[in-house]
Amino acid sequence: MVFRLKRRVIFFATSNINKFNEARRVLAEFKISVGMLKAKSLEIQSDCLEEVAKASVMYAFRRCYLPIVVEDAGLSVDALKGFPGPYAAYVYKTIGNRGLLKLMEGVKDRKARFESVVAYFSGELREPVCFVGAVTGKIALSERRRNTKAGFGFDPIFVPSGNRKTFAEMSLEEKNRNSHRANAFRKFGEWYRASA
Amino acid sequence: MVFRLKRRVIFFATSNINKFNEARRVLAEFKISVGMLKAKSLEIQSDCLEEVAKASVMYAFRRCYLPIVVEDAGLSVDALKGFPGPYAAYVYKTIGNRGLLKLMEGVKDRKARFESVVAYFSGELREPVCFVGAVTGKIALSERRRNTKAGFGFDPIFVPSGNRKTFAEMSLEEKNRNSHRANAFRKFGEWYRASA
Repeated sequence: MVFRLKRRVIFFATSNINKFNEARRVLAEFKISVGMLKAKSLEIQSDCLEEVAKASVMYAFRRCYLPIVVEDAGLSVDALKGFPGPYAAYVYKTIGNRGLLKLMEGVKDRKARFESVVAYFSGELREPVCFVGAVTGKIALSERRRNTKAGFGFDPIFVPSGNRKTFAEMSLEEKNRNSHRANAFRKFGEWYRASA
Repeated sequence: MVFRLKRRVIFFATSNINKFNEARRVLAEFKISVGMLKAKSLEIQSDCLEEVAKASVMYAFRRCYLPIVVEDAGLSVDALKGFPGPYAAYVYKTIGNRGLLKLMEGVKDRKARFESVVAYFSGELREPVCFVGAVTGKIALSERRRNTKAGFGFDPIFVPSGNRKTFAEMSLEEKNRNSHRANAFRKFGEWYRASA
């Protein structure tokens, strides 16, 4: 008996279930099935998210030889010269939202930008392909979430432009309508459907 | 005519002239000559300095095949859960000493620790060797330097234990007596002399 998958499956190498859920919903719009691959990742230190994502996807691919997608996000605050930038995850783990709000105390210019880079590689490609999504907004004056479990990372202090809610006050559907990550995954989805 | 070097020369891959000067003085105690090699480095993202330094030294070695030393330093502030940690250089470049002092406003526990890892590799070794130096201390209440040019990085806000001066208020000789970097390079110097 020959077992065939109806649609091709790709694997999202991440240990962040929230990121995975956001990606899964977006990719479902393109009828792309995605599995979560919990793998120790290698991230290089670079101010360039694309460089980080490309190195990560190649590292993950060489460990499993499956079609792999990775995502790397950064938050840049204008008044802090781009901090925390590509080190958002580490900064969140240490000083967190409270630390970022403390750094922004008394600061009028609250402009910030979330960026997401999705990198994909499979054995059929010569090199990884990248898709970038970005959203501008501002840093809220305090943490705000829909409920105690809503949002992750800097979501509770980021208000996207044209909105009054923080990312953590939105439902997943609302957030996915215009988040940096959803935009990047949507670009990937379009490319993948066109090239598959 | 055969040209012979009286002593062997190693190369410190760094773009930071201050680090180079500190290392040069310490290595001179061991009669080790060191050249500065300005090279684009590759730094992986890891909370483990040794991992970062080993990857860096191998990357630099593969570009020149010379005996290479690299150094990676981190500053961990207890009350900030270890922040800025291995990302000290990026954090310094963005929020700087002022940002770190702002995060520490009203914080009583000012304990901090500077750590330095020196990694060395040459074609004669099977794998890189690492030497760790550390110094405990505390975060000062404000920036203090000997003169406007003294110190670099977080030196003006770090007071090593048993001292009243910040690193930036000390002469290079004073700082090298017990800095994390000097300690790591001293350990390397001892090993190098013993194994050369």
